[in-house]
Amino acid sequence: MFLKELESFIEIFTRLPGIGEKSARRIAFHLLKNNKEEAQRLASSILSLVEKIQFCEICGGFSTESICDICKDENRNKEILCIVEDPSDIFIIESTNEFNGVYHVLMGALSPLDGIGQDDLRIKELEQRLKTETIKECFIATNPTLEGDATADFIVRKFSHLPITFSRLTHGIPTGSTLEFTDKHTLSISIKNRRILKNE
Amino acid sequence: MFLKELESFIEIFTRLPGIGEKSARRIAFHLLKNNKEEAQRLASSILSLVEKIQFCEICGGFSTESICDICKDENRNKEILCIVEDPSDIFIIESTNEFNGVYHVLMGALSPLDGIGQDDLRIKELEQRLKTETIKECFIATNPTLEGDATADFIVRKFSHLPITFSRLTHGIPTGSTLEFTDKHTLSISIKNRRILKNE
Repeated sequence: MFLKELESFIEIFTRLPGIGEKSARRIAFHLLKNNKEEAQRLASSILSLVEKIQFCEICGGFSTESICDICKDENRNKEILCIVEDPSDIFIIESTNEFNGVYHVLMGALSPLDGIGQDDLRIKELEQRLKTETIKECFIATNPTLEGDATADFIVRKFSHLPITFSRLTHGIPTGSTLEFTDKHTLSISIKNRRILKNE
Repeated sequence: MFLKELESFIEIFTRLPGIGEKSARRIAFHLLKNNKEEAQRLASSILSLVEKIQFCEICGGFSTESICDICKDENRNKEILCIVEDPSDIFIIESTNEFNGVYHVLMGALSPLDGIGQDDLRIKELEQRLKTETIKECFIATNPTLEGDATADFIVRKFSHLPITFSRLTHGIPTGSTLEFTDKHTLSISIKNRRILKNE
């Protein structure tokens, strides 16, 4: 039993992150069993997503206009620049309500093994901003992975001649977790960077 | 940070089975980061799925034409009718290559608590087929749930006056599983229906 439209739907859906063949099939059956309107709403939500949302010309984050709401916002502190790998990281940091500066999206991290060098990232755009804007602190929030750490190191070294403070996300044991479930790498960083509670 | 198109995409995607908010967000970011063509392919695969695939007029299964390939197939044994709850169950049974009869989809199972009675299922269509086609055996493959079992009982009782054999999927411990991981209900059915290996 072979239905071309079903198989092609499954093939295209399984390219999405986190969707396997069984999930794609379940989604297809769900759409076929329900009214066509749901499928049409789904299709048009996909199209309007990619048609209306673009990358902000300044920070590289998602935006419905050429400049995003954060870059346009007069109340944000333009002196602190948070550097992230992906546009989606901005949403994660914004959700903490802890950061009131502006962002710069690199669009990835250095990864020589995957052939991703500095020219593939938005490093030139970063250089331009560091030179022309009044940035006093670069808060590097790349992921705590080999690639993210290497990218952070690279940025600090490349721009160390500029009168800018560089900071990095603290690595450590997630709140609510235990030593037992913490990986060795995190634990060793957490020990190395231990916080002194009382001196002498 | 609020992007209307993104939030509406997430809201619509989370209505799909197995998609939570995090998955929907990841899919949105994946589509936004990649080229627009992938999103367009995705949208058109959804539309062509629901536009081209319909329910077969005879069995109720999925089909691109008014009569499905299985019902049209001269090589299938039209004397054995497999009764399933959902069109998607046909794919599962077909994948075993164990069944060469034809199908009848009920479009659900009896469930008084959910307000699903016999008139909500394709029982009248089944009655019509049992009376006009040359069916000798009804193989009831509804799910081994309370609803599926009740539906099977209902069908056997309703059509017991007809000269037709009724059979049911064997319930029992899945192959490769152990007693330890088998639920009580399955185990009790498996004991009640135990297969005699040698008599006396």
